[in-house]
This record gives sequence, C-alpha cells and structure tokens, in this order.
Amino acid sequence: MRVAVDAMGGDHAPREIIRGVKEGLAHLAPADQLLLYGPQDVLAAECAAVGLSDPRVQHVHCTQAIEMCESPVEALRQKKDSTIGRMAQAAGKGEVDAIISAGNTGAFVAASQLRIKPIPGISRPGIAVVVPTFHGPAIICDVGANVAPKPHHLHEYARMCAVFAKLILGIEETRIGLVSIGEEESKGNVLVKEARNLIKVDPTLNFVGNVEGRDIFAGTGNVFICDGFVGNVILKLTEGLAEGIFKTVRREIAEAAPDFVRQLEPVIANIWKKHDFAEYGGAPLLGINSVVIICHGRSDHRAIMNAIRVSIEFRKVDLIGVIARQMSKHGREDAA
Amino acid sequence: MRVAVDAMGGDHAPREIIRGVKEGLAHLAPADQLLLYGPQDVLAAECAAVGLSDPRVQHVHCTQAIEMCESPVEALRQKKDSTIGRMAQAAGKGEVDAIISAGNTGAFVAASQLRIKPIPGISRPGIAVVVPTFHGPAIICDVGANVAPKPHHLHEYARMCAVFAKLILGIEETRIGLVSIGEEESKGNVLVKEARNLIKVDPTLNFVGNVEGRDIFAGTGNVFICDGFVGNVILKLTEGLAEGIFKTVRREIAEAAPDFVRQLEPVIANIWKKHDFAEYGGAPLLGINSVVIICHGRSDHRAIMNAIRVSIEFRKVDLIGVIARQMSKHGREDAA
Repeated sequence: MRVAVDAMGGDHAPREIIRGVKEGLAHLAPADQLLLYGPQDVLAAECAAVGLSDPRVQHVHCTQAIEMCESPVEALRQKKDSTIGRMAQAAGKGEVDAIISAGNTGAFVAASQLRIKPIPGISRPGIAVVVPTFHGPAIICDVGANVAPKPHHLHEYARMCAVFAKLILGIEETRIGLVSIGEEESKGNVLVKEARNLIKVDPTLNFVGNVEGRDIFAGTGNVFICDGFVGNVILKLTEGLAEGIFKTVRREIAEAAPDFVRQLEPVIANIWKKHDFAEYGGAPLLGINSVVIICHGRSDHRAIMNAIRVSIEFRKVDLIGVIARQMSKHGREDAA
Repeated sequence: MRVAVDAMGGDHAPREIIRGVKEGLAHLAPADQLLLYGPQDVLAAECAAVGLSDPRVQHVHCTQAIEMCESPVEALRQKKDSTIGRMAQAAGKGEVDAIISAGNTGAFVAASQLRIKPIPGISRPGIAVVVPTFHGPAIICDVGANVAPKPHHLHEYARMCAVFAKLILGIEETRIGLVSIGEEESKGNVLVKEARNLIKVDPTLNFVGNVEGRDIFAGTGNVFICDGFVGNVILKLTEGLAEGIFKTVRREIAEAAPDFVRQLEPVIANIWKKHDFAEYGGAPLLGINSVVIICHGRSDHRAIMNAIRVSIEFRKVDLIGVIARQMSKHGREDAA
C-alpha cells in the first residue's frame, strides 16, 4: 500500500500535516509506503522539526501548491507541478493507492476527475462525509464535488454510499433518505423529484423516502443524498451551529453556576469529542478508481492521522473494487 | 386593524390556535378585530373550552380545511371553502389586514400569490424567518416559498429583507450575505453567481458577500439570502440539531453529574428559551400586498400569540407600505 499525502494543503499546513503523518505511521504495515508531496526543502525542515524519520516515508518534490482561494481548473492548468496535480497523476498511473489532501477541495476533485479513471458506471464522483448524529454515524453525499448534478448522479451516489455504509461503517441495514423540504413526493425541486423516481425503483436500495433537514440528525436514515451545494451548506452549518451551541452552553453555565464549570468541563469535552468531525478523518471522493480522501481545510494532526487510517481501511476492504462490482452487477441487470 | 387567524391549520389545531388567540388579544386595541376562520361548530366548541369570549373576536364559517399533506394548488382548486383560501380572498379584497396560518405552507403561499396583489416591483414572494443566532437575531429568506427562484428573485428578497431588518428588528446596519459554498466569487451554483452580480452592484444594499453554512450563526451577517429549498433545509436542520444537542447535553450531564442536573435545569431552559423559534412568532411572506404570517406546523399557543403580536407590529410600522415605497424608489433610479 502506497499512501500519498499533500504536505502543503490546508489552513495548518505543513506543520499539522507532518504531525498527522507521523502519528498515522502507526497504522502502516512494515512494507507500506507513505509519500509526502511538497517542496523538498519544506519537507526536510518540517520533518526535522517534528522528528519524523521513518524508512517508509519518501519525499516527492513538487515546486508548487494550489492555494485555497484559487480557481480549481485554472490553477491546475497553470501550476503543472502542484502537489494536488502530481498526486492525482500518480494515482491515475497506479503509482500510489490512495491520495490525501486538506487543500483546495475543488482543485483536488477536478484533478482526480481529470487524471484518474472513473469507476465504470459512475458518471460523476461525489464527496461522502460521515457525520456523527445522535443515533450513530450517518453519511451525507454529495457535500461539494458537484453543485449542479443530474438526477442519475444522485442515484449513483445512493448506490455507492450503500456499499460505503455497509463496508466501512458496518451498517447492515442502510436507510437512504433523499434530502428535500417535506416528506411528500410532491415536495422538492425538479432534481429531487426526478432523482426520487430513479432511487425508489432500484431494488438494491433501501429507500426511506424524502427527508427534511430536521431528520438528518434524528435517526430517520443513515445515508442522506443531496446535491453538492445543499450538502455543503448542511455540513458547514452543522459544524458552525454545534460549535456555537457548545460555546454558549459552556459560557452560560459558567455565568449561572461558576462552581460547576470545572467539574462539568470533562463532561462537555466528552460530548464534544463524540460529535467531533476530526475523529472521523477525511471524506472519500466516491466514484473515482482510487482511494481519494478529502480533508477539511481546518484539519489538524488528528484529522490527517485519521485520514491515513481510513485510507488504509478502505484499501483493506477493497471499497473501490466492491463498488465497481456492485455497479457492474446493476448494469447487467439493467441491460437484461 | 383586522387580523384573520386560521383555526384549523397546524399539528395542534384547533386547540392551541384558539389558546394562542386568547393570549394574543392582549395585543389588540379596543377597536381592533380578530377573525377566526373555521367550521362554526368547531370554533364555538373550542372557544367555549378555552374560555375565549371577547366582543372583538368574530367567527367566519368555512366548511373545509386543507390538510398538511395535500398538494397545494390542487387542494386550493378543489376546496373552494377552505380556511386558507377564504382568508387570502378576504385579504385580497382588503376586508382583513393580516392573515395568519400554521397550516399547509405551500397552500398558504399559493393562495396568497393567487388572491392578493404583489407589491409592485416584486415578482415572487419569499418567506423571511427570524432566527436566533449567537450574535442576535438574523433573517433567512427564502425558507420555502420558491424552490426554483431566478437570480432577480434573490435580489428582491435582499431588498425586502433590508427593510424588514431595519423596521422590525431595529437593525441599523444590515449586513447581507448570499448563502453559498465558499466566500470566493467563483464558488457556488449558477443561481448564486448571477444573483451575486445583481446584489453587489445595488447601492441600497450593504452586501458582505458570499457566506458559508457556518457563517449563518457566527455573526458574519444578519440577513441571509438563498433559494427556498436551501433555506428550508437550513431552517429545519437548525431546529433539529439544536434540539438534539440540548437533549444530549442534558442527558450526558444527568449521567455524569446527577446532583447538578436539578440546579442546571433553569440554566439550560434559559439558553433554550433564548434560541427558541416559537418566541419569534411566525414568518412573514414578503412581497405580497398584505401582512401574511406563516407559522410553523408545530406551533403551540405561544407561537400563535406571537404571530398575532408581530402582525400588529408589522401593520403599525407599515412594513408593506415602506417596502413598496423602497421598491418604487429603486425602480425610478433604475429607469433614470
């Protein structure tokens, strides 16, 4: 197994990335390799700084990095030697088995789409993120790869996520919900109405119907399908709101009952930890013929360590291969 | 002032509606009237049950009610004597000044659009909801009137909400954000990109740019514009998540520190109250030439009481008139 990590991607790169890599090595087998992409001098200095020295780690010199604010396609075209572009190229050629970046998501998605083959039967990849809910983990897909999907893209997301849920989260009974503005079939926009018609007749899927925003964390389903615009808003709203509520609760308790705060700190920290996104590592870009892990721009060392851990897990259970077989099986049934 | 209330709309109708009306009477002047729409026998029985007897309350007999699950336009066509249809008709004729319902939102929006004139310059109305954030109240518009708006509809929402924020919430400096998936102009879908071009050049608006989901509760702006699908998901997700987090916090504290719970109950109740949607009453459907207040389907008596209170406030400050003048002023500037 060869895991490639973008040392230059994310708000806290390169330091937190290198720290995460150092911690992630614990998950690698002796024969595995970890390839760090970045400028050689930066890599050397940062590895020295955090004390990362391991024969399994190789440095891949790239002279450029794509910034968070750059236009994805333009940046990829202009920066021929970017970490993101080079990693996708290596994955496309089969030189690495998994690629991980906390950098510009749009550029990482575009590079993966351009330079790595799709899984046969998948027309557009989607980012599937695992979120902690009050009823166990759930998957939301897509959270930003494709802001203007077609109905059959949403259907493909549902099929891939059903495999993902079973294989990675160990969910035996997937319950797939389509994000809309009411349970009724008549509600929603054109995309949702047409996607619903495709998903509900698919015999391989356990479709629970349309779900509303309030259902996502209420256990109504464990796989939630939506377009990348809606999914991205859901994801970021959830992060911001959860953080805000926890801060508010802590502050108000501190004001009203200052004596309790010290004793309650570990309780609140524990609740927060259970619902912390960083614990789940990065999100896979599903539909691409390689393990592609997209990390949050704010990723710290734990998120990177977890991304390395899940990339190895994905490879071990052959997530991509199982999705491919599932898609081709369905293709044959369709043709029959 | 004549306020019309749908006694049959909402999950807890008619009882909670009638209770809310009874409490709402405190906000009415002696010469004001409150018209209750519903079947005469139901109204009589419910008013007797809650002890509502006031010379300002009149009963308007309607034989039908539109159910929550019914298709809005079809239901309006078939049920000629529905509470919602009759209220909109009365508002269109100027027989009442404000209409309030916690019933089928789609039907209430459609009836208002069909039977009441739009404010000149507004092509489609939007539902503007006031949400409690950690930095004071903010407005989200649209939360479900129009799931497939055009860019100029979003521009109209921004203009109307700027008036609403100032007049009703007393916000002197409105900061308008356009909900997207990144701050950068290049991010978002086609709707957002085109709407941005209209909003950012409008000299009457203080546009802070694109905002992400996490900005909505973080004080980045106080007016957030989006399409009705996205806004509805945001609103319901927020409700569900906030409720879930508060429950979790309460439960975990109870488990970890049972002695504290009783003492903390009022603190948590107080935080919850500050962020409780019911405290803000219903949401106005902006762009219609009448005060139209849409209440949550789960409205209890407090929500109805607050809806009556805000409908009177809207009328007092002449919200509709000020929006109309603002729109016509802008129209002249455009033409000049």
